[in-house]
Amino acid sequence: MIIVLKPNLSTKDQSAVLKEIKRLGYQPHVMRGVARTVIGAIGDERTHQSLDVLRAWPQVESVTPIQKRYKLVSREAHPQNSTVRARNVVIGARPFIVMAGPCSVESERQLLDTAHGVKAAGAQILRGGAFKPRTSPYEFQGLGEKGLKLLAKARKETGLPIITELLSEDHAELVAEYADILQIGARNSQNFQLLIAAAKTGKPVLLKRGLSMKIEEWLLAGEYVLSNNNAGLLFCERGIRTFETYTRNTLDLAAIPIIKQESHCPVVIDPSQGAGRADLVASLCKGAVAMGADALLIEVHPNPKAAMSDSAQQLSLEGFAQLMKDLKPFITAAGRD
Amino acid sequence: MIIVLKPNLSTKDQSAVLKEIKRLGYQPHVMRGVARTVIGAIGDERTHQSLDVLRAWPQVESVTPIQKRYKLVSREAHPQNSTVRARNVVIGARPFIVMAGPCSVESERQLLDTAHGVKAAGAQILRGGAFKPRTSPYEFQGLGEKGLKLLAKARKETGLPIITELLSEDHAELVAEYADILQIGARNSQNFQLLIAAAKTGKPVLLKRGLSMKIEEWLLAGEYVLSNNNAGLLFCERGIRTFETYTRNTLDLAAIPIIKQESHCPVVIDPSQGAGRADLVASLCKGAVAMGADALLIEVHPNPKAAMSDSAQQLSLEGFAQLMKDLKPFITAAGRD
Amino acid sequence: MIIVLKPNLSTKDQSAVLKEIKRLGYQPHVMRGVARTVIGAIGDERTHQSLDVLRAWPQVESVTPIQKRYKLVSREAHPQNSTVRARNVVIGARPFIVMAGPCSVESERQLLDTAHGVKAAGAQILRGGAFKPRTSPYEFQGLGEKGLKLLAKARKETGLPIITELLSEDHAELVAEYADILQIGARNSQNFQLLIAAAKTGKPVLLKRGLSMKIEEWLLAGEYVLSNNNAGLLFCERGIRTFETYTRNTLDLAAIPIIKQESHCPVVIDPSQGAGRADLVASLCKGAVAMGADALLIEVHPNPKAAMSDSAQQLSLEGFAQLMKDLKPFITAAGRD
Amino acid sequence: MIIVLKPNLSTKDQSAVLKEIKRLGYQPHVMRGVARTVIGAIGDERTHQSLDVLRAWPQVESVTPIQKRYKLVSREAHPQNSTVRARNVVIGARPFIVMAGPCSVESERQLLDTAHGVKAAGAQILRGGAFKPRTSPYEFQGLGEKGLKLLAKARKETGLPIITELLSEDHAELVAEYADILQIGARNSQNFQLLIAAAKTGKPVLLKRGLSMKIEEWLLAGEYVLSNNNAGLLFCERGIRTFETYTRNTLDLAAIPIIKQESHCPVVIDPSQGAGRADLVASLCKGAVAMGADALLIEVHPNPKAAMSDSAQQLSLEGFAQLMKDLKPFITAAGRD
Repeated sequence: MIIVLKPNLSTKDQSAVLKEIKRLGYQPHVMRGVARTVIGAIGDERTHQSLDVLRAWPQVESVTPIQKRYKLVSREAHPQNSTVRARNVVIGARPFIVMAGPCSVESERQLLDTAHGVKAAGAQILRGGAFKPRTSPYEFQGLGEKGLKLLAKARKETGLPIITELLSEDHAELVAEYADILQIGARNSQNFQLLIAAAKTGKPVLLKRGLSMKIEEWLLAGEYVLSNNNAGLLFCERGIRTFETYTRNTLDLAAIPIIKQESHCPVVIDPSQGAGRADLVASLCKGAVAMGADALLIEVHPNPKAAMSDSAQQLSLEGFAQLMKDLKPFITAAGRD
Repeated sequence: MIIVLKPNLSTKDQSAVLKEIKRLGYQPHVMRGVARTVIGAIGDERTHQSLDVLRAWPQVESVTPIQKRYKLVSREAHPQNSTVRARNVVIGARPFIVMAGPCSVESERQLLDTAHGVKAAGAQILRGGAFKPRTSPYEFQGLGEKGLKLLAKARKETGLPIITELLSEDHAELVAEYADILQIGARNSQNFQLLIAAAKTGKPVLLKRGLSMKIEEWLLAGEYVLSNNNAGLLFCERGIRTFETYTRNTLDLAAIPIIKQESHCPVVIDPSQGAGRADLVASLCKGAVAMGADALLIEVHPNPKAAMSDSAQQLSLEGFAQLMKDLKPFITAAGRD
Repeated sequence: MIIVLKPNLSTKDQSAVLKEIKRLGYQPHVMRGVARTVIGAIGDERTHQSLDVLRAWPQVESVTPIQKRYKLVSREAHPQNSTVRARNVVIGARPFIVMAGPCSVESERQLLDTAHGVKAAGAQILRGGAFKPRTSPYEFQGLGEKGLKLLAKARKETGLPIITELLSEDHAELVAEYADILQIGARNSQNFQLLIAAAKTGKPVLLKRGLSMKIEEWLLAGEYVLSNNNAGLLFCERGIRTFETYTRNTLDLAAIPIIKQESHCPVVIDPSQGAGRADLVASLCKGAVAMGADALLIEVHPNPKAAMSDSAQQLSLEGFAQLMKDLKPFITAAGRD
Repeated sequence: MIIVLKPNLSTKDQSAVLKEIKRLGYQPHVMRGVARTVIGAIGDERTHQSLDVLRAWPQVESVTPIQKRYKLVSREAHPQNSTVRARNVVIGARPFIVMAGPCSVESERQLLDTAHGVKAAGAQILRGGAFKPRTSPYEFQGLGEKGLKLLAKARKETGLPIITELLSEDHAELVAEYADILQIGARNSQNFQLLIAAAKTGKPVLLKRGLSMKIEEWLLAGEYVLSNNNAGLLFCERGIRTFETYTRNTLDLAAIPIIKQESHCPVVIDPSQGAGRADLVASLCKGAVAMGADALLIEVHPNPKAAMSDSAQQLSLEGFAQLMKDLKPFITAAGRD
């Protein structure tokens, strides 16, 4: 930690700060500069109590942490890329992975048509929401357990592992019984109790970035999964909230190289939520592939014009099949299969 | 809903859109303009399925809702101000209310000292966190039920009703057993399952605005409380996330007149989270009072320099007593007691 | 400056960094911590070349400045509040100042009616735009010099000093010939050539905060005025751009106590631009007064329903007169006249 | 325009609105809905005065424009892609273009080394700043005309056309005398007088997106160039300002397909400013190529560790040469040469 003192302090006031730093288990190094006195406090910031408390001292102008606060998700802790397995599919290895399916599971017909369609086009994992978080209580909230059963049926028919959202601690066991990957949505990205509940099921967890989540907070939320003895963590960028209104969110593709640099966990991109518009999905997918993403999470519906949620951002089966073809040269250029 | 069609559509393509609008239960009015054809779709957007689905149609350029999506929280539904009662304290009536106490309950001594101190200075409600949501799993997570028991003891000694945060559906009954008001934190502001669980306890719910929550989304989150048969809803502005780094968050004080205009529910301001700096709290409190807030939620600690969380933003007991004095002329100017 | 080195560097790599720090005129203090080596570089960051260049070194993880980059605008440089005089009106002293008038000067009738009206209601300075920056080239761009002449006429009739916007270096002399205060708009807040041109006229400069300007950048933009030998600087907060769409901008009222803390210059609040809605102006004005602003800048039009720009945010003369009455108790409570 | 009326208006109040709509040259279509009355106003919003003025009417709840406000930059106005020529280099055609060079021109040696280096690696245009906009008045402001002369010399030696920033109306002729493309920086993106001055030189204009500029505002700023009889417009995305602090800005790569959809003008990506970190530049370039950008603008310095501005984001010559190699498969995959 670096502590900057206010100017013109008495010796007594300075000593009090130094004493407190020592009391908290750090060793202070004092540097007297032209305009300010600066104290470097040496000690492990992750095992000692934080010196943040010094911000409340009238003598102190600022407190700046030096160490990164995340451990288990960090690349320093695990220099090799880690991989996450969902049944026979491995994410984070050389093969590029595509997860596709409807925003919401609506009916057996809709889901099976989609599952067969996306499999035929080359997707390796089936997505579909059974429990849906909705901005308004008057919107369709998903089919619940019935939706989970339909997902299981689709998996049986197609062999595709399934990913679906968990949005209540109370459903953790139920959802984990059916799903191969648990998805934590953007609105729950700092619902730490839900993260712990998800981690404890032992199933892989795909953690979406919150709408206003800094990279560091996202990594720390991931730390809640890894520190609860679950190594199957995927980071999924799905757009952050900015002032721009042309798109629903601003997809922060720079998150791909950043997470790859800071962490060992695989990175997934969700272009459907990121743009909120089907007409931008193909372009965003190409960018994601080129920039080193490990997987895509794409919304596909056999009839987007009749979808019960987020219709504007879902691709048709034909649109998805075309996209998979168009992505091929970029997947090759990126050195993936 | 207003549907704008793309230019140069065939009659057949236009007819298909009109047919779908009728099928969904709306009556279309066509207006042919210079550059675009616009359709006004008449029907109750809150009871029929949304026409949002038309966004996925290739014929459609944009879909704009006309009606507001919130009902029960809206002032149209309830023209008079509503009030919320916590034991003998009423929020939203003429008396101005101050809720004060430590960020986290740390010990009996700390809590009782604070409770007596804030009561003496004029606070009417005691705040204190027993379950704490923390960005990192390695930070202090609160005393849990032991903290709740200390809060109950402080209430018994001082007579102050208590407000404390609920952060897990599984704790809803437990926390409601002790608390007079349940606080939903910013990170859980769209954790709809938690909102429903809180509403169902029957206790008043203070709903903090999320870090990147639009006013409309906040009102709709409040709708989850009211539509679950709980009329005791308080909206609490605590700062939104912007690009500015001088303060932890940007306190959006305009939310006060906006919520008052759109809704009948009382408005509470949390200047401690809003600024993240104790030195700005007094000024923000004055602004909040002048702009028509019904209550303040202020972090106070008998020794901020030793607080276990958010030390930089907690006032000392002396600082709080001074603030209460300084606020008086503004409370009077605002026509409150 | 604090330089954090990457882990596991060779002695040679560390020495190279130390050597460069010395070459740039700083004295390095090395602190070896548990996970990182940290170097404190002592020297005046405002007179030596910045050590920012070290960010490009592969050995370096981060570079953090300690000193503030602004000098002349800082309160350290000038502990007393400074005041700015426009003819007989002083801003920043005990009397609270209100500047009011139309968004754009449209005609002699419109301007004189407004000038007399706002004077009668208690305003001390007349505002009005002659040169208007407009998002689209097809919108009304102002009356230009004709507008300046009308402003001069209104000043002659009412005795009110005038403030008007400067938006081109080429107009600096012309506008300064007429205006008592030059306004720099939000879009030009980092148009440094314009700031220099404005400063050189010797007239006071009101510097609006840019839509995405950090406090530090705003203070540094002000430094361009003071360092060009013009002491008449006013900071004007007028709302920043955020994700919220209910208001046009988010008025950051916390800027008042922050600028007061960091700088000696007077602070003006523009609630009309801040909200973009006349119905929020009164509430924002009350907040601004309570939080310690020195002046308000308010848009008033004799007939807002027919205004040629920003009609939605202009008050009528009656609305303005009522506001001036309603503000009185808050001005008194804030200890101003 | 769509005008939504407030509920429960008298017939007289409604008629007044209808009368005003007609007076302004539009034909009103009234639709009476369940909760609101909606008026569609038919007429060309780009030639008639805007109905925005109705926002100030007490009878009106909202006013929503239907037409897009930009004309000349829109793809509707010019369905084919337009191209921009700088001497023998054409931007916007099949060949992918790379503009590279130092942030600031510092010396003849530095510039010529860079120019030869980037040419050898495959760049087609040389960039370099002679006039530099700097946040603080105490930072290096560029070599001015001397820098322009060095750029001309580098062009003579290498044959590379040059792009350099214009930041003052007063320099427009001077800079245009030397430069092949005029760059308008992010801070001046809504300095409309500068845009007009640049357009009038007849040289192509590269318009960077402002830090908090919406796509629509960016297109309208471009309209200032095209409507001043200059068809040589390039849009350059360089990152927007968000809450994220890991990168200096958030590069909004979705701007590529959006601008391509809305406009006919070429799109350039500046990954150096976008990230503010050299280690992310390569990844962002790959994304930009894959997503359909026409050109890149990259900061390269023969010795980034000694650069006088923005050292952290400049590539070395070796780094740039490697990048050019790594981009090749992506350029091919994108169907460019």
